[in-house]
Amino acid sequence: MNDFVLHGAVLYCENSSSMKEYEDAYVVCENGLCAGVFEELPEKYSDFPVEDYWDKLIIPGLTDLHTHAPQYTFRGLFGDMELLEWLNSATFPEEMQYDDPEYAEAAYDLFTEDLYIGATTRAVIFATKHTDSTLMLMDMLEDTGLVTYVGKVNMDRNTPDGCRETTEESLRETVRWLDCVEERGYERTMPILTPRFTPACSDRLMRELGELSAARSLPVQSHLSENLEEIRLVSELCPDSRFYGDTYEKAGLFGSNAPCVMAHCVWSGTEEQDLMKKNGVYIAHCPQSNMRLSSGVAPVSLYLDKGIHVGLGTDCSAGAELSLFSAMRDAVLASNMRWRLSDQNVRKLSFAEVFYMATLGGGSFFGKAGSFLPGYEFDAVVLDDENVQTMHPATPAERAERLMYLLDDRNVVGKYVRGTKLY
Amino acid sequence: MNDFVLHGAVLYCENSSSMKEYEDAYVVCENGLCAGVFEELPEKYSDFPVEDYWDKLIIPGLTDLHTHAPQYTFRGLFGDMELLEWLNSATFPEEMQYDDPEYAEAAYDLFTEDLYIGATTRAVIFATKHTDSTLMLMDMLEDTGLVTYVGKVNMDRNTPDGCRETTEESLRETVRWLDCVEERGYERTMPILTPRFTPACSDRLMRELGELSAARSLPVQSHLSENLEEIRLVSELCPDSRFYGDTYEKAGLFGSNAPCVMAHCVWSGTEEQDLMKKNGVYIAHCPQSNMRLSSGVAPVSLYLDKGIHVGLGTDCSAGAELSLFSAMRDAVLASNMRWRLSDQNVRKLSFAEVFYMATLGGGSFFGKAGSFLPGYEFDAVVLDDENVQTMHPATPAERAERLMYLLDDRNVVGKYVRGTKLY
Repeated sequence: MNDFVLHGAVLYCENSSSMKEYEDAYVVCENGLCAGVFEELPEKYSDFPVEDYWDKLIIPGLTDLHTHAPQYTFRGLFGDMELLEWLNSATFPEEMQYDDPEYAEAAYDLFTEDLYIGATTRAVIFATKHTDSTLMLMDMLEDTGLVTYVGKVNMDRNTPDGCRETTEESLRETVRWLDCVEERGYERTMPILTPRFTPACSDRLMRELGELSAARSLPVQSHLSENLEEIRLVSELCPDSRFYGDTYEKAGLFGSNAPCVMAHCVWSGTEEQDLMKKNGVYIAHCPQSNMRLSSGVAPVSLYLDKGIHVGLGTDCSAGAELSLFSAMRDAVLASNMRWRLSDQNVRKLSFAEVFYMATLGGGSFFGKAGSFLPGYEFDAVVLDDENVQTMHPATPAERAERLMYLLDDRNVVGKYVRGTKLY
Repeated sequence: MNDFVLHGAVLYCENSSSMKEYEDAYVVCENGLCAGVFEELPEKYSDFPVEDYWDKLIIPGLTDLHTHAPQYTFRGLFGDMELLEWLNSATFPEEMQYDDPEYAEAAYDLFTEDLYIGATTRAVIFATKHTDSTLMLMDMLEDTGLVTYVGKVNMDRNTPDGCRETTEESLRETVRWLDCVEERGYERTMPILTPRFTPACSDRLMRELGELSAARSLPVQSHLSENLEEIRLVSELCPDSRFYGDTYEKAGLFGSNAPCVMAHCVWSGTEEQDLMKKNGVYIAHCPQSNMRLSSGVAPVSLYLDKGIHVGLGTDCSAGAELSLFSAMRDAVLASNMRWRLSDQNVRKLSFAEVFYMATLGGGSFFGKAGSFLPGYEFDAVVLDDENVQTMHPATPAERAERLMYLLDDRNVVGKYVRGTKLY
C-alpha cells in the first residue's frame, strides 16, 4: 500500500549547497520511505504502481519550523508595530479568545485548512496557554495527515491577565496536556514544550520545564534574539545570563537535553551562535516576520557556513503568509538587503540555500525528512506550474525559483506524507 | 452608456497621507468621470443603473509606473545578479528576440493577458528598440482597454550588437514609430520617449530626443540612480554632469519640456531630488526589483515629504511579479529594512502611503486618475476577498492591507477603465 512510484520532473537537496534536478525521473516510495530517484525505473520496482505526473514538478514536502496557529485570524494586519507593542496590542488579546472552545474550533479550522492546501507537509506550531483548545488543534492537525509538533504555551510573567498563568498552574496544565496527548495516541501529532520566551517565563518555570524536557525526552521551541528592545529586556530580567540564549541554556531548554528550535536569532552574537552549534539547536529563520516587525535580518549564510541547523518559518501572523514559497522569496530578498545596507561580510543567500532550508534544513528536525535521499520518510509535493507561461524551457530548479514569486494554492496538485497520499 | 453607479465597500486616497473608507457606499460614474462617493445615493443619480457588489471592495484602478513588457518571459529567474551583469546576461539577449514578429506576438500576448487580469488599469511600459514589435504591443494593449504609455527603446552605445542602434537609425526609427502611432489613432495607448538610460545613450542621441520631446510635447521615461556601479559608470561617461539626473536635464529630458518618469532613484542625492521636485519629475519606486538586484532601497518617505511625485513600478522582470499589491507589500517591507539597517532619519512607509503611491501617486502621471475624487477619470477595480477568512470584521483599509500579502487574480472580479467596464 505504501509502495509506489511518482514520475515527473524532480528537484531536491542532498545538503545545504547542492540541489539534484531531473527533467524526467522516478521517485520510489517503498514501505513509506524513499528508495531513491532514478532516471530509469529499476527492475525491482517494476511491479510498483506508477503515478504519472508527466512534466509536473515533484519536490520533497516543505517544513514550517515556526508558526502560531492562533494568530492566523489576523494575518496581514498590524504590520506597523515592533515586537513588544505588537504582542501587547494584537497578539495577546487575540490569544485570550482561545479559552472559548467554539471560537477555537472555528479559528483553528481556518488555520489547518490553509496548512493542508499548501506545500507544507510538516510544521512546528505554537498554540496558546489553553490546554483544551491546544488538544483540539492537535486533533484537527492529526486529521489532516500532516506531521506536526504542537505546543501548549507557557507564560507566567509580564503578560496581561487573560494570558498569564501562575507558575503552578502552568506546570500542572502542561503535565495534564502531556498526559492527554499520550492518551489520545496520535500517529503524527507530537507535543513540544513551549515556554513563550524568556520575558514571559520566570526562572522557576523555565527550570521546571527543563526538568520535564529531560525526564520525558521532550523537544523544546521558543523565541530568541528577535528584537533589540526584547534583548535589552532579557538582559535586565536575567542579569546573570551571559546572553539571551544562556537563559534557556541555564534551564536545560537549549538543546542539551532534547531537540530544540529557536525562532528568529536575528541578533545572536558569536557566543550564542557557538552554543547553538555545540548543542545542535535549530534556528527557524522567519524573514517576512522580521521585515514586517522591523526586527532586522538574521545573518543566515553565516549560520549555514558555521554548520548550524537552519530552517524556514512563516511565523504567522507576524509573517502574513503561511506559504513557505513566500518565505523562500523573502529570505532571498532580506539577505540581499542585509548585504547591501548593512554587512557585505555575510554573503547573500542563493536559491539552492533557501530551498534547502525549506526542505531538508527544517525537515531534519523531524529526523529523516525533507529529501529524496534513500531512507528518508516519503513526503512529496507535486507542483503544476503550467499557468506560468513563458517562451523558454526552464530547468526544475528554475521552475521552483519562479514559484517563490508566483505560487498559489492552485499550483499544489499533489501531496504525500510518510508515504500516504493526501490528495 | 457611461453613466452608472457601483455599490459596495469603498477605499481611496485624497492625498498622500489620508485614505477615505466606507463600509457601504455608492461610487458614481457620470459621462466617464467620477462624480463622487456617497453614503446615500443622491436623487439626481437615481436613474443611473446600479451595479451591486454588496460587501466587495471597490478601489481606484492601480497604475504601474514602470515595467518592461519584453522581460515578462523570464520573470522570476536570474535573481542573483546586480544590474549591469543582469542587463548583459539576461535582458539584452532576450530583447534581441523581439526583432522576430512571431516571437514578439507570442511573448507580448502573455504579458498583456497578465496585465489585463490583475488590478492594474494604467501602465508606463518599456518595449524594445524594435519599431514594428513595439507597434504590435501597442495594438494589443489598445485591445485590452487599459490605458498605457509605451516606449520604443533608444540605445546607441555600450550594449551588445543585436540591441544597439546607430544614432541615426535610432532617431529615424523613433520618428517612424511616432508617425505610425499617430496614423493608428489609438484611443488609450500613447507613445513615450524612452532613452534606455544614460550609459546606453550618447550625448547626441539624448539631445535630439530632448528636442523631439519639446517639439512634439512627448513625455519621457528612463532609469535613474538605481545601482552604485551604474552611477559610477555615468560619472565616467559624463564628466561634465553634476549628478546622474543632470545628464537627462542637459538634454531636455528631465521634466522641463514634458512630463517625465524616472525609475528607481535609490541613490539620488539632494541636488537630484531638488531638481526632480522643481521639474515635477515622477519617481517610479520599484521595491522588488531593487531588492532582487541588490540595488538598495529608495528613501521614499523622504521623497513624499518633499512633495516629489512618487508612484510604484513592478519593473518586471527585475521584479518578478506584475502585481501592484505585491509592490505595495514590498515597499512596506523594504522601507522597514531601510529604517532598521541603514537610516532611522527616514521613516517607514505606512499602508496609506503605499496605497496612495499605487493609486493617486502614480495615476496622476496620466492626469486626473487614481482617485474617486469628483472629476477624476473613472478607473475602478472590484476585489472579492471572501476567500480571506478570519474571525474578525475588518475595515476597507484593513482588507486592502491584507490583500498586499494574499491577493491573486481570483480576487480581482471587476475592472472599469475611463468609465468602461472591462469585466
